[in-house]
Amino acid sequence: METSQAYQDLLSRMKELTLLNTTAGVLSWDQEVLMPPANAPHRGGQMALLAGMIHERFTSPKMGELLDQASSQEKTQAPLSDAAVNLREWKRSYERARRLPQSLVEELARVSSQAQVEWVEARREKSFSRFEPWLARLVELVQQQSRCYGYEKHPYDALLEDYEPGLTTQVLDDLFPPLAENLTRLLFSVANSPVKPDRSLLHRTCPVALQEAFCRDLASSIGFDFSRGRLDVSAHPFTTGLGPSDTRITTRFDPNDFCNSFFSALHEAGHGLYDQALPAPHFGTPCGEAVSLGIHESQSRLWENLVGRSLPFWVHFFPLMRQKFPGVFDDVTLEDFHLAINQAAPSLIRTEADEISYNLHIILRYELEKDLLTGSLLAKDVPEAWNHSMEKKLGLVPGDDALGCLQDVHWSHGSFGYFPTYTLGNLFAAQFMEAARRDLPSLEDLFSRGDFTPLRNWLREKIHLQGQRFRSEDLCLHVTGKPLSSKAFTQYLSSKYGALYQIR
Amino acid sequence: METSQAYQDLLSRMKELTLLNTTAGVLSWDQEVLMPPANAPHRGGQMALLAGMIHERFTSPKMGELLDQASSQEKTQAPLSDAAVNLREWKRSYERARRLPQSLVEELARVSSQAQVEWVEARREKSFSRFEPWLARLVELVQQQSRCYGYEKHPYDALLEDYEPGLTTQVLDDLFPPLAENLTRLLFSVANSPVKPDRSLLHRTCPVALQEAFCRDLASSIGFDFSRGRLDVSAHPFTTGLGPSDTRITTRFDPNDFCNSFFSALHEAGHGLYDQALPAPHFGTPCGEAVSLGIHESQSRLWENLVGRSLPFWVHFFPLMRQKFPGVFDDVTLEDFHLAINQAAPSLIRTEADEISYNLHIILRYELEKDLLTGSLLAKDVPEAWNHSMEKKLGLVPGDDALGCLQDVHWSHGSFGYFPTYTLGNLFAAQFMEAARRDLPSLEDLFSRGDFTPLRNWLREKIHLQGQRFRSEDLCLHVTGKPLSSKAFTQYLSSKYGALYQIR
Repeated sequence: METSQAYQDLLSRMKELTLLNTTAGVLSWDQEVLMPPANAPHRGGQMALLAGMIHERFTSPKMGELLDQASSQEKTQAPLSDAAVNLREWKRSYERARRLPQSLVEELARVSSQAQVEWVEARREKSFSRFEPWLARLVELVQQQSRCYGYEKHPYDALLEDYEPGLTTQVLDDLFPPLAENLTRLLFSVANSPVKPDRSLLHRTCPVALQEAFCRDLASSIGFDFSRGRLDVSAHPFTTGLGPSDTRITTRFDPNDFCNSFFSALHEAGHGLYDQALPAPHFGTPCGEAVSLGIHESQSRLWENLVGRSLPFWVHFFPLMRQKFPGVFDDVTLEDFHLAINQAAPSLIRTEADEISYNLHIILRYELEKDLLTGSLLAKDVPEAWNHSMEKKLGLVPGDDALGCLQDVHWSHGSFGYFPTYTLGNLFAAQFMEAARRDLPSLEDLFSRGDFTPLRNWLREKIHLQGQRFRSEDLCLHVTGKPLSSKAFTQYLSSKYGALYQIR
Repeated sequence: METSQAYQDLLSRMKELTLLNTTAGVLSWDQEVLMPPANAPHRGGQMALLAGMIHERFTSPKMGELLDQASSQEKTQAPLSDAAVNLREWKRSYERARRLPQSLVEELARVSSQAQVEWVEARREKSFSRFEPWLARLVELVQQQSRCYGYEKHPYDALLEDYEPGLTTQVLDDLFPPLAENLTRLLFSVANSPVKPDRSLLHRTCPVALQEAFCRDLASSIGFDFSRGRLDVSAHPFTTGLGPSDTRITTRFDPNDFCNSFFSALHEAGHGLYDQALPAPHFGTPCGEAVSLGIHESQSRLWENLVGRSLPFWVHFFPLMRQKFPGVFDDVTLEDFHLAINQAAPSLIRTEADEISYNLHIILRYELEKDLLTGSLLAKDVPEAWNHSMEKKLGLVPGDDALGCLQDVHWSHGSFGYFPTYTLGNLFAAQFMEAARRDLPSLEDLFSRGDFTPLRNWLREKIHLQGQRFRSEDLCLHVTGKPLSSKAFTQYLSSKYGALYQIR
């Protein structure tokens, strides 16, 4: 169906905005991966200027007129047509963006660009006090942001909407407490199991150059296309889409902790597969964009955990890995290795946590964020609140703030409301995998032969190629036939850990 | 002296433009160093959009009004005061930029961004025909550019002004032919000398990782500050200033050609020292910018050649190099090494050419560029013209176009008029060094002890800290007491090569 002039005009304006957004993306990638930290103030100025320009262009009255015109001219389009989907999401974003004053947008960009550098230094120095004023300022700014956006029930809803459109604090408050209870119970059973993985396997020395080569092999094998992407190193692994043929993932290396690099690479490659499979002709419009952070995370966690920590995956890769790291794993059996990479026990660092306790880390952050936002927790009191909650949830107290509340980059980016999408990702991933197994019964055999194409194609068709046609909860229903819940996830964990740890 | 409101307003607008210019710089650096080539069309779109926005902002009527107001309000400022210098250069750039239509600016950015990727592929495939349509299009665009700028005598003058303000084709036509004659004579004497350097020394295998570490040592030793810069790898080494504390240099590595990496690193570090010493508070204004490409090149060639290929330099570094590359140079004397790195003989590749023949490569390009611009040479005939001129000037014919007219990146950037500044750099460098020796008599002793601080400080004070206070020819007169000529350079070469090759 033909589209109107107003729609075509919008399309070209939005694609131009995407050029600016991805330019900001390059600046940000560069800052995290390469830039000399001393340049942070200048980079902050660049980021603020771009953010302001993007905001100004996106929220111009002309944009509003075009959206109104196009919406009325396209109202005969089918509700899930490209034009209808794009207009629905553009209007949503436009109406939200209009509520933020330009000055706040610029200030957030400026402060977070500098705060990120301060966070790196503070973490290195294990000094919360260095980061505290930045955190306090960022909380003030996101409180303002929440007030500008507006909300019905909880100020946190206004922020969630940026990361998981349609999701509310209420949904999380319903999902998380019973999930936490289940996880705590499972963690307790694992701790009391007679099965004790040999964790020392995970700390055998593997030279960084070999780890890097193996990470590239892993990412390529599951389908990450290096002719349209890169793998680099950053303090906090991440994925960013800088263009239809430029998807960049990062990992980090420690010679005595290969799991960190392997599973980070698999995780980010999972994100990367999503970005690389989004329909390129729609790049820069909602039809060519990921649904939400929760759905994005479902792709990374699916490849990292549901595939990458499964036995069939290592049936294929363990012999290859033995060859790649000569002598290091000669005395290790596949089963011992598989058990070791699935060891579960409370620990301090979220990104290194097992599949069970990981979600307790998230719920902790979710609770703190809500309290910071309402003002019932002050920035200065974060370390104490963090440590108190860690002790309650995981029975551990960090020895310093680098192992505690300074471990994650998100707050330094001004990203509050982001963390819950990690656990949502786990829930979606388990539901998607349950559905994929139904459609592709011989999945385990394929994995053990190193064939990940059928699963990748299934994900591409069901999820990636859809762009933002559906919101996350609708997509879940559409793909799996079931609404979002924690059932598939807790079943997956119980069955996997039950077998591994001989839990009755 | 206080400055007016109009001046302050201009200052803040210009600093904002610098944020955009350095953003384009990041995109361009990233494209040359890291970006997957498949992303070139998207990056081209980003570059074109930014170039257009920068042009639009810079040439806005408001900018013209402010320039007029500020100029009349600041007319009592001393002619070399910060405000007078900034206004002088802003007006010059503004008036030039106003002559270019926005569409041409955007088209040049778009075409050159894609042409650069095509050039990389064409060079790899040794296929001029792949690059030919891009070259033809770029020539058309720079011909348009020249017509828009306007010129008094030669269309090439209009382009030169971008790289070496104030310099004309006439000056080059006076300088180059006698210089070429001198160089050809010297090259002939060298060829007929009984002294024959052992060139095989230069192709002993040095592992790339060790070369890289040594490049970092060299750059640090002459004063490049890695806390405010980076060293990376690119097909064509270059330096770019992305912020007051972010100066990036690149080199390239070949295990069997360490000279290439060492001298490229020294060369780019020479550029880097200039950028790092420009007065930071003036960043983004003429008082904080380099004078011209010729003066920039004088800094790189000074460190690469006049310092880096001198005997005292290697009195210090040769023993260190022996240690860094165990076993590789044990049987080599300092004198043989020094002779080898100063071997002079006609060769095909500009960036690998010796100090004498290098300038014949430049003069060849200068002549072709003038002919392309006037239309007396067509893009399709460039390989033939190149090969013909190479044979006439250096007695060599390239075996393929990768070794011939495809060797340099410049034309793919749309940079015509740039090459002559390389030879100007050599001339300025020799004049500056002559003056530095007058002011700092024990320079050779210092070098042989690894002390480059006095020379660096001299350059900083005399040249770097001046920003654009003087135009290049005035700076030369101011610093050396003499106008630009090829005298110091030919004297330097005659004396150095006369001694090395026992030429009477």
